[in-house]
Amino acid sequence: MNAAEKLRKGEQTRAAILDKAVEITSQLGLEGLTIGTLAEATKMSKSGLFAHFGSRDELLLATLDYGTALFTEQVFLPALKAPRGLPRVRALFGNWLAWTESTRLPGGCPMIGAAAEYDDRPGPVRDRLQQGQWQWIDTLKKSVQMAKDEGHLAPEADIEQIVFEMFGIGLVMHHHRRLLGDAKARARALAAFESLLERHSVSPAQPTLRAASR
Amino acid sequence: MNAAEKLRKGEQTRAAILDKAVEITSQLGLEGLTIGTLAEATKMSKSGLFAHFGSRDELLLATLDYGTALFTEQVFLPALKAPRGLPRVRALFGNWLAWTESTRLPGGCPMIGAAAEYDDRPGPVRDRLQQGQWQWIDTLKKSVQMAKDEGHLAPEADIEQIVFEMFGIGLVMHHHRRLLGDAKARARALAAFESLLERHSVSPAQPTLRAASR
Repeated sequence: MNAAEKLRKGEQTRAAILDKAVEITSQLGLEGLTIGTLAEATKMSKSGLFAHFGSRDELLLATLDYGTALFTEQVFLPALKAPRGLPRVRALFGNWLAWTESTRLPGGCPMIGAAAEYDDRPGPVRDRLQQGQWQWIDTLKKSVQMAKDEGHLAPEADIEQIVFEMFGIGLVMHHHRRLLGDAKARARALAAFESLLERHSVSPAQPTLRAASR
Repeated sequence: MNAAEKLRKGEQTRAAILDKAVEITSQLGLEGLTIGTLAEATKMSKSGLFAHFGSRDELLLATLDYGTALFTEQVFLPALKAPRGLPRVRALFGNWLAWTESTRLPGGCPMIGAAAEYDDRPGPVRDRLQQGQWQWIDTLKKSVQMAKDEGHLAPEADIEQIVFEMFGIGLVMHHHRRLLGDAKARARALAAFESLLERHSVSPAQPTLRAASR
């Protein structure tokens, strides 16, 4: 093996380990992810894992970064194929819901679980989680702003409020599916989302509340 | 001390311990609640705590039951003073938001955190959490149903959908306040909630979308 091949092989191993780490986090939270549980799941030695990550904290941060990269790959990038405006907002939101139900994530979104775990524990893990959540919120805001710029949403539509409500719909779908096993959660989430868009849209066939009460 | 006094004193001690247990769970999740961390927080001996709870699992269940009792006392019971219909729905929702910001819960609602932790771990703790969440959902449904019966909501209002969306608003407010430190979260949550009620209400001053598009 030459140096480039070695590097590539090292990266493949690391990706395979991090796949498992994301899977464990999805089910057991970051609390459940230790060098020990990961060694068991990957059938690697603890010392081998320490060689890759150095410490448990580094492992947690690497797992969050890897989870964020997967999220980008599965939720964000495919949505860019949809035209700017409402089609892209719908693609982002639909991909997000699909992500939380992905078979690769047996326990749902690892970041949503971790957010609840770390919201009161200052430190690098919390910082990384916050950063990821803000990034996602910014992505949603930009897509909604574009929908407004394209004339798909009313000029007075409050972007931050819309994204806040979208986020709530995503969280409750995750909560109801995961904890309560509610089979109707996805349909209810989509109904809530479409009603949110309709309320802020300017399509003459669907007058907004504001227009109606003038 | 006679037997009744002893019993009362035992109950007071237990309540003081469980107050601390709920506080720890609010900040660190159920993961962070062990006989050891509780002994440190209450300055009691581990053996004294074992005498009260028997095992860590029993401690977790007792903490959830105590948390649920506090929730009933602070969210549900005061709302019964509000008249049936929308005033009571508003009181329940407002008390819920206030509960997640209560100074007694330094890390927010202990049950929301625990739900994310245990959603993929079958067993008695998950069962107890599910039961508590369904109870709260049922309470909200009943209050919204009464608002419909009182004529405050449109006859075609979909109770389950409304409660699903209310739940999402509560979750996102908790998430944005706790993880992201978003100071506007409460105002946004209330705006989303009022818009939800307005959409399903029948007040002639505020025509619903359906009425407007006829």
